[in-house]
Amino acid sequence: MVSKYHEELRNEDLSLPFTPMVVIELVSSTKEEAIQWLVKKIRDKKEQGGADLKVTAVSRGQELLDNSSPNLLLVGASKKRLLLGAEETGLVKECKDGSMRAFTCSNRGSFKMLADDGCLFSIAECQYIVKHALDSLRARQEAMVPGYPLIRLYPGKSVLQRLEARGLLTQVFPLHNKDDLKKLAECWYGKLKPTFQPLDDIRHYFGEEIAMYFAFLQYFTLALFPKALVGLLYYLFAWEDYDKYVIFATLNLVWSTVFLEVWKRYSATLAYKWGTLSRQLEFEEPRPAFHGVLGRNPVTGRTEPVYSNVQRSLKIYLVSVPFVLFSLYVSLCIMMVYFEMEFWMQSYSSRRPSPWSGLLLYVPGIAYATVIEIMNRINRFAAEVLTEWENHALESSYQNHFIVKVLVFNFLNCFSSLFYIAFVMQDLKLLRQSLATLLITTQIVSQVIEAFLPYWLQTRNRQRIHKKRRDLPAYRRAPWLEQVELERSMLAYTGTFDDYQELFLLFGYVSFFSCVFPLAAFFAVLNNVTEMYTDAFKMCKDFKRPFLEPAANIGVWQLAFETMSVVALITNCALIGMSPPVRLAYRDAEADLILLVVAVEHALLALKFVLCLVIPDVPREIQTKLARMDFEKLQALKQQRLQQARESLELNGG
Amino acid sequence: MVSKYHEELRNEDLSLPFTPMVVIELVSSTKEEAIQWLVKKIRDKKEQGGADLKVTAVSRGQELLDNSSPNLLLVGASKKRLLLGAEETGLVKECKDGSMRAFTCSNRGSFKMLADDGCLFSIAECQYIVKHALDSLRARQEAMVPGYPLIRLYPGKSVLQRLEARGLLTQVFPLHNKDDLKKLAECWYGKLKPTFQPLDDIRHYFGEEIAMYFAFLQYFTLALFPKALVGLLYYLFAWEDYDKYVIFATLNLVWSTVFLEVWKRYSATLAYKWGTLSRQLEFEEPRPAFHGVLGRNPVTGRTEPVYSNVQRSLKIYLVSVPFVLFSLYVSLCIMMVYFEMEFWMQSYSSRRPSPWSGLLLYVPGIAYATVIEIMNRINRFAAEVLTEWENHALESSYQNHFIVKVLVFNFLNCFSSLFYIAFVMQDLKLLRQSLATLLITTQIVSQVIEAFLPYWLQTRNRQRIHKKRRDLPAYRRAPWLEQVELERSMLAYTGTFDDYQELFLLFGYVSFFSCVFPLAAFFAVLNNVTEMYTDAFKMCKDFKRPFLEPAANIGVWQLAFETMSVVALITNCALIGMSPPVRLAYRDAEADLILLVVAVEHALLALKFVLCLVIPDVPREIQTKLARMDFEKLQALKQQRLQQARESLELNGG
Repeated sequence: MVSKYHEELRNEDLSLPFTPMVVIELVSSTKEEAIQWLVKKIRDKKEQGGADLKVTAVSRGQELLDNSSPNLLLVGASKKRLLLGAEETGLVKECKDGSMRAFTCSNRGSFKMLADDGCLFSIAECQYIVKHALDSLRARQEAMVPGYPLIRLYPGKSVLQRLEARGLLTQVFPLHNKDDLKKLAECWYGKLKPTFQPLDDIRHYFGEEIAMYFAFLQYFTLALFPKALVGLLYYLFAWEDYDKYVIFATLNLVWSTVFLEVWKRYSATLAYKWGTLSRQLEFEEPRPAFHGVLGRNPVTGRTEPVYSNVQRSLKIYLVSVPFVLFSLYVSLCIMMVYFEMEFWMQSYSSRRPSPWSGLLLYVPGIAYATVIEIMNRINRFAAEVLTEWENHALESSYQNHFIVKVLVFNFLNCFSSLFYIAFVMQDLKLLRQSLATLLITTQIVSQVIEAFLPYWLQTRNRQRIHKKRRDLPAYRRAPWLEQVELERSMLAYTGTFDDYQELFLLFGYVSFFSCVFPLAAFFAVLNNVTEMYTDAFKMCKDFKRPFLEPAANIGVWQLAFETMSVVALITNCALIGMSPPVRLAYRDAEADLILLVVAVEHALLALKFVLCLVIPDVPREIQTKLARMDFEKLQALKQQRLQQARESLELNGG
Repeated sequence: MVSKYHEELRNEDLSLPFTPMVVIELVSSTKEEAIQWLVKKIRDKKEQGGADLKVTAVSRGQELLDNSSPNLLLVGASKKRLLLGAEETGLVKECKDGSMRAFTCSNRGSFKMLADDGCLFSIAECQYIVKHALDSLRARQEAMVPGYPLIRLYPGKSVLQRLEARGLLTQVFPLHNKDDLKKLAECWYGKLKPTFQPLDDIRHYFGEEIAMYFAFLQYFTLALFPKALVGLLYYLFAWEDYDKYVIFATLNLVWSTVFLEVWKRYSATLAYKWGTLSRQLEFEEPRPAFHGVLGRNPVTGRTEPVYSNVQRSLKIYLVSVPFVLFSLYVSLCIMMVYFEMEFWMQSYSSRRPSPWSGLLLYVPGIAYATVIEIMNRINRFAAEVLTEWENHALESSYQNHFIVKVLVFNFLNCFSSLFYIAFVMQDLKLLRQSLATLLITTQIVSQVIEAFLPYWLQTRNRQRIHKKRRDLPAYRRAPWLEQVELERSMLAYTGTFDDYQELFLLFGYVSFFSCVFPLAAFFAVLNNVTEMYTDAFKMCKDFKRPFLEPAANIGVWQLAFETMSVVALITNCALIGMSPPVRLAYRDAEADLILLVVAVEHALLALKFVLCLVIPDVPREIQTKLARMDFEKLQALKQQRLQQARESLELNGG
């Protein structure tokens, strides 16, 4: 059967018997027998250890297109297989009565169809199901990959993971859907008229994780509006003599707490609507790059590499943590050198004023910015290497350790100079100036780098492929083949990390010191609005389609933002204490002033803590719905248990 | 059938056909038909809406014993019913291979027998199962309780709850087991030689909640040992010049953080061993005292009283919170009056020294202590009334609101004067004196009130009943009847609240200021050791046996102790900053000193927060076991789903 299909391919019959959803790319040197084995595995029934999917290999025929000519497998699935897969992966869908339930084939009639095409699942969901099926394709009796005696297999080992770890598999990606994408792009960034983000459509096309990011971006922007308005008023009516900023700091304080509490509730509502809040998490497989001695996983009982936790902890606490501390120390030293230089240049230029010395004044600032940028890159690279070396078994654990490392460093890198100016030099004018410079330059630079550079690369690439295509004989210009060819060379979307990080830093700029630069919120709104357009643009135009990632919240970022809001509370209290009118009132009792500020700060921290405890993270309405689902599950379980118990007791005669 | 059983009772055939486990007491005026109806309900098969238990009514014949002559129902269960009930309630038991699994009748062969009697369940567990069966006895078609047209019923209403709410049911209690109790008492407090608490035996007899309390008490005591030792050394070698207490305060700081983190892990280990960590929680029924308009519970869909959440929130935030704040204000005012009086008395007695004025010096202290005690009682009563008035639907919510109210008040009442002395008056000598007085007097008073007073009452009661018994004809002196008669008049154990509260305040005394009175930990150890004996004694001798309560941790107390440890961190930092040597070093820079102390405090708070995040709450070994259980469940569910999905697809032809 395999060879027959392969024959078909050789005949270059490019009309496919199914819709391709996911593309698997193998390196061009992959041996024929390995490809055949993989195709058979993917196509085999479940009982024979296969994935029960449809698959077609495209290869040898296309040498003309590209010198590297990879082996491509196009994977699709039958409708029946998709239904089965949806139940297996535990997808939660909306019922006709409006409640959210885990999909089951047996009552698939009770679920709502998607509006447009009478299907139960979006294409993103179908691709997710296919991906899941491919990921859970495991070796059975095979001791090795055919043709590669060195690529060992053992029962239960994920096949694609092994191929990827050994470099045979280059990538697995889902295909874009041109019509849907065009429709989405139109309502997303096509009109210049500002509207709400089409969150449900984004989720429909890109999945929950990305939709959650855009929901957060939109929420953040809306939440900034009142602040921006007040800031603008301050600026226009020249209230910016530091006397008035006590009010602004108080506003900041309340804002940053309420902001996060309300977001938690809003994101829970979204996640419920999208079916991710009540979804049972899949068991997490070890990462492909995870290595260790072959042993038994104590949880699953599967044969797997195992790696000592003690050893990993030692690596973390004896190497990674000291390294991060050391690089923090280095960045502080660099900052001190910068201030020294700045001071020296200023005194030099005031001693010998000349056009040259005027220019020299800019040197330290430029040098510092350059060094910071270099340090940022070095550190991110170091964080990646270190976290990889720590050898985390799970992707989530890897991500958390990586994010924490990068964030700690970036936080200090971006804010240390501001903190120094604010609390050591106590120069509020300079603070305002630095804040403005940082805020505006970062915005411009980052948006150019993140959206327009990839677009330029992408356009060039597209033109190159089109040109090549034109030279080919007509029967080879199958439209889907061109699409695959085009998309495989697009950049891969690496996740929401960079986008969240930008917002994270922006949140810091806006809430730490904005009382000395009330326009900060206004610039942040400007930034966010353009960010929405550029991010939407880059998702649709620059990158390969990412697989859907179910997400019920913004994960570790919630914690990161909450930490920032605590820091913001402290800095705002300190800034109020340092403000000229307050200082004037306590002229002869500095100690009393400090004690008062500290007392107020502690009271506010306690209040914040109490608020966090008292405000429920999930709105009551959603809580009730979830509780109802739990109750029903419990009742069903009880019924089942009772039935079983009775049967077993009857059988054994009590 | 009912009448036949009742006949038997009239015949006073006191040899029971089953072991009575639980006693239901109805008021003496209960109408015969209501009793008959209840007995029938309890005895009926499940399909007929009964509880399928064994029951015998003892009544009319016993007028001689007591004037009030209540109606007593003795309830037991067959072995088969107990097995079924264990599965229904989701009991988690130890398997022969050492893992903990939810009990199922179908593989009951794989569970470990209890060592002593070849049974699967302890008597406490059997009583718990019977209690659960009684609690879930619900009305079906009955519109009212027979004989009481005013006691309405509706389908799904818990029968015992309704009888209790309307005052027909006085109490439901499990019976003690004399032999087991004697054995337990012997190894618990029988020997004066100090040993570890027999936690497993306590759990076996009294259930997890009480065993968890004793585990915490023991853990707390052991954790205090090093502190007590250091404190004693300080005292003996007269290091108590305030110079040295910087070291002691630092020790305090570390101790209070580590103490709670380690406890969390230890309690998780215990809860795993006792099968409560992985146990699925039962759905919580509304409290008997909960009232409202009859409606549909949005979660269960049952007909039930419902009460608007908005109304409850209004009651809480507009009445309860202001009331608590007001009583805090009153207690602060009283404290200020006390200090005024104290000051006035001192100046008076120094102006006119005489034996009378010497005595007068004690008046303010005594008056203050008395007023505090009175305030404590008023407030506890008010907290009960208010929380009852807030009309919480669930017992857990009621308990949390009640505990928070009482704790906030008690905290301020007990510590406000100490805080005032420490931070406003800054009189460390007086602080030490007050601390010692408070610590020692509270200990002595509380232990007399809590253990020996009830014992004395209990002994008198027992003698009275024995005397009456002797006057009865021989055939009435059935031993179990005497036991029931004795136990029904014992005091009811009202839960672990008071015991935890004592430890909570003690924790405050030990960790807030103990650096000025290093012997505090030593006295606390003494207190705890006697507390262990008196608590054990009172559990075994003074009270009715309580029903087993499954508990996986110490609940809201964990949060309470953690809050205390944060406060302790702050007070200790402040005390270090106020210590004479530190002050001397910063003689001319008070503001700098305060800033330094605040900076150190914030760093320590951040460190504490990071520690809480980094140290896993559950030891890795237990985590793995739990993950393994989850994984197995998930796999089974997946198998089952797949099977169902296939079947359904086959049936419908895809």
